[in-house]
Amino acid sequence: MYPIDDFLNAFNVFLPKVIRDFSCQNDLQQALLYATLNGGKRTRPVLCFIFGSMVNKNIPIHNILHVASAVELIHCYSLVHDDLPAMDNDDLRRGLPTTHKKYTEATAILVGDSLQTMAFDILSSDVLNCSSDTKIKLIQILSKASGAMGMVSGQFLDMNLDSQFDKNNLLHIKQMHQQKTGALITAACVMGAVIGDIKNQAIQDKAKIIGGLIGELFQIQDDILDMTQSTQTLGKTAGKDLTNNKPTITAFMGLDNARFYADDLVQKL
Amino acid sequence: MYPIDDFLNAFNVFLPKVIRDFSCQNDLQQALLYATLNGGKRTRPVLCFIFGSMVNKNIPIHNILHVASAVELIHCYSLVHDDLPAMDNDDLRRGLPTTHKKYTEATAILVGDSLQTMAFDILSSDVLNCSSDTKIKLIQILSKASGAMGMVSGQFLDMNLDSQFDKNNLLHIKQMHQQKTGALITAACVMGAVIGDIKNQAIQDKAKIIGGLIGELFQIQDDILDMTQSTQTLGKTAGKDLTNNKPTITAFMGLDNARFYADDLVQKL
Repeated sequence: MYPIDDFLNAFNVFLPKVIRDFSCQNDLQQALLYATLNGGKRTRPVLCFIFGSMVNKNIPIHNILHVASAVELIHCYSLVHDDLPAMDNDDLRRGLPTTHKKYTEATAILVGDSLQTMAFDILSSDVLNCSSDTKIKLIQILSKASGAMGMVSGQFLDMNLDSQFDKNNLLHIKQMHQQKTGALITAACVMGAVIGDIKNQAIQDKAKIIGGLIGELFQIQDDILDMTQSTQTLGKTAGKDLTNNKPTITAFMGLDNARFYADDLVQKL
Repeated sequence: MYPIDDFLNAFNVFLPKVIRDFSCQNDLQQALLYATLNGGKRTRPVLCFIFGSMVNKNIPIHNILHVASAVELIHCYSLVHDDLPAMDNDDLRRGLPTTHKKYTEATAILVGDSLQTMAFDILSSDVLNCSSDTKIKLIQILSKASGAMGMVSGQFLDMNLDSQFDKNNLLHIKQMHQQKTGALITAACVMGAVIGDIKNQAIQDKAKIIGGLIGELFQIQDDILDMTQSTQTLGKTAGKDLTNNKPTITAFMGLDNARFYADDLVQKL
């Protein structure tokens, strides 16, 4: 297996190239680059890479870079829109001004919109070297995970916009987390397995379960860090969840219980 | 050929069904329905239908409804986002409160985001009865037309966000129109031809030319109506282009010349 660090280096060279290939040469392109090249951890691309390599040791790096970048672009679009004043109203992201602070709100809305389109552009592109059946499968997984049955629905619940949502109900909070964070992380794992070998259904099923656990852990850890770390360490405004009255695991069960919960998930993984 | 009115009736039954199938049952779904079922003219679905039927007289209505709804969902998402306070700041759309006025800005952002995803969900769906090659071709056309090389880039220019854009240059205005309006209208025509028969490249080429002319005419007509009609007739706030200092054809060449220009396009068509 290709070392993870080498993959990450290749990914961080590949992503700006993709953005230049799939957008017009104007100021929008600059804003698209700003929104995506700000030192993200690339968790989803790495998961995609790990599962792809697990299924197929000789997976073409070209293919995994394409698929991983599609997932990451969806993640980046969601951050840009979530940071908007009408949403979480955040001025900082990874220690830098958020896209709407650096440019304008209109630019940030359009940046998010086009990053989303670009993800589907990449997965349907002729330069992705696999069968149309595989491309369609990847697009199905990504659209289900990121739309009104997944990530966007989770953000809708997280914003307290749904009248049926009860933030004192653990099942509701867990469902919200699963949609908001878990769905895309799971998609990253499963899409890696699919581009590795679409016929290996057993690994895709495992990727789904493992991805679900990682997603849950990821969100709880995010809730804990928001309560315990400084703005400087986080690179985004600390304590926002409490200020914004967000339905977090920590608010529901307290910090200590949330830590036990996270430890339990680590054991399961 | 199926009569256009019958197609329109079928389409207006089909669209809410699609939204219920591709979204979770919560308040987001209600907002998605609100944003899409407000008496739109369904220009793009009709064009898609006409070109599909022209290529293939026995085209399955099921398929054309799916493809047409994907295009229409992209159009609806763009309207919801374009109406936002940070964009064109419009309170009325088709005589009704815009989505952010009816609900909240956060809801409108998320509605737009999920309508876009839904379009790609539909085109990759197993219920669309055609080959994966055809689905991929449709997704390629739609993503190219609607993203940072098409519709979103056009809106970026229209919002005067690009430092290179010169609203006193007719070529710039025409390019902006082509991207903002022409690209998706052209896509509707070409996608109809593709779902009719992917192998008939000649009709796809013609659909591209005719779609481009219709798109140009459509935008000029929109500019003229904004200057000459009442808010009540338009169903949206009249005179907004002038107030917002928009780079329109009417502002560039005056109302009379714009009318000559539109007549000339009709002749060409």
